[in-house]
Amino acid sequence: MLNLQVETPDRWLNQVDEDLDQVLLDHAHCELSAARTALNLMVAYVLYEPLTVEMTRIINEELDHFHQVLEQLNRLDIDFKRQQPGHYGKRLNALVRSEEPMRGGDRLLVAALIEARSCERFCLLRDHVRDPELADFYGSLFESEAGHYATYVQLAKDFMPSDIVDQRLDELASEEAQIILEGYSRARMHS
Amino acid sequence: MLNLQVETPDRWLNQVDEDLDQVLLDHAHCELSAARTALNLMVAYVLYEPLTVEMTRIINEELDHFHQVLEQLNRLDIDFKRQQPGHYGKRLNALVRSEEPMRGGDRLLVAALIEARSCERFCLLRDHVRDPELADFYGSLFESEAGHYATYVQLAKDFMPSDIVDQRLDELASEEAQIILEGYSRARMHS
Repeated sequence: MLNLQVETPDRWLNQVDEDLDQVLLDHAHCELSAARTALNLMVAYVLYEPLTVEMTRIINEELDHFHQVLEQLNRLDIDFKRQQPGHYGKRLNALVRSEEPMRGGDRLLVAALIEARSCERFCLLRDHVRDPELADFYGSLFESEAGHYATYVQLAKDFMPSDIVDQRLDELASEEAQIILEGYSRARMHS
Repeated sequence: MLNLQVETPDRWLNQVDEDLDQVLLDHAHCELSAARTALNLMVAYVLYEPLTVEMTRIINEELDHFHQVLEQLNRLDIDFKRQQPGHYGKRLNALVRSEEPMRGGDRLLVAALIEARSCERFCLLRDHVRDPELADFYGSLFESEAGHYATYVQLAKDFMPSDIVDQRLDELASEEAQIILEGYSRARMHS
């Protein structure tokens, strides 16, 4: 359903075991970054009302998740601090083409893939982390991220014909799979 | 209460009479811009939790107002389109100092003054526009903008001592008054 071309390798769960704090910290920053992506899309395509309605909903949800992650950090006595982000988002965003309407379509599909990967990883965390409240928390986020994925793909279909969206989603998902297989040396949500 | 040093000159109400559509269009864009300012502040000062809580509330309210303005535009058969912004925000933001913590304090106080001026102008629109539904709409926004003003000033007091905040707010309000007295040739929310 999520169009991901590889499953998360076991390597990532080892990183989670070794450095869960860093993954949780990154998660907080990722939620804010997701809100920012949605607001940037809203500003860029402000004349397209269906997009502004969906982006508003997504911004509200991402900000709500941000505060929920902060609550978990507080509960687990983890200091919220700044952190060097991984290269996942940057690498994916570099694939966005520069000319409209492909640019808009690509931005939406990259956002969709990031939501899809987050969704997959939240499921893994739900089943993997030992703290039951944290496991429940990740279970509770799953549905929302899957919904965002579907919303972004649907909106991309107003920028490019449906069959082109499917084809481009495949191409981008293939690049995404490559980035995931390469991995990232520090423990992050998308390492 | 709002610390503005000049009242809006009659010139502005003449602009409103001559080109209400342009003012309403600008209002829609201003709401989005206000959401963006709040999210930028949230990202910049993400470790300061009280600010992130208040910014989240403000972002949600500004986005809600954006959609409410779009509804008014639809109702009044005004096409929502892009528009050259006025120079008000740019001129005010140029007064922000570059070194922290003054920078953070200034950013919050500039945001406060923009909310204060919006608040004053919404009152004027409520009493001035002929369309009763539009007048009610501006009446309904008044309280929210006044609340944002107070929130921004309060948050600035965690960046600078309270007496310095008062003094800096006076300085910035004096510059703001100057920009308002100079005016702007095209009809805008802050022209």
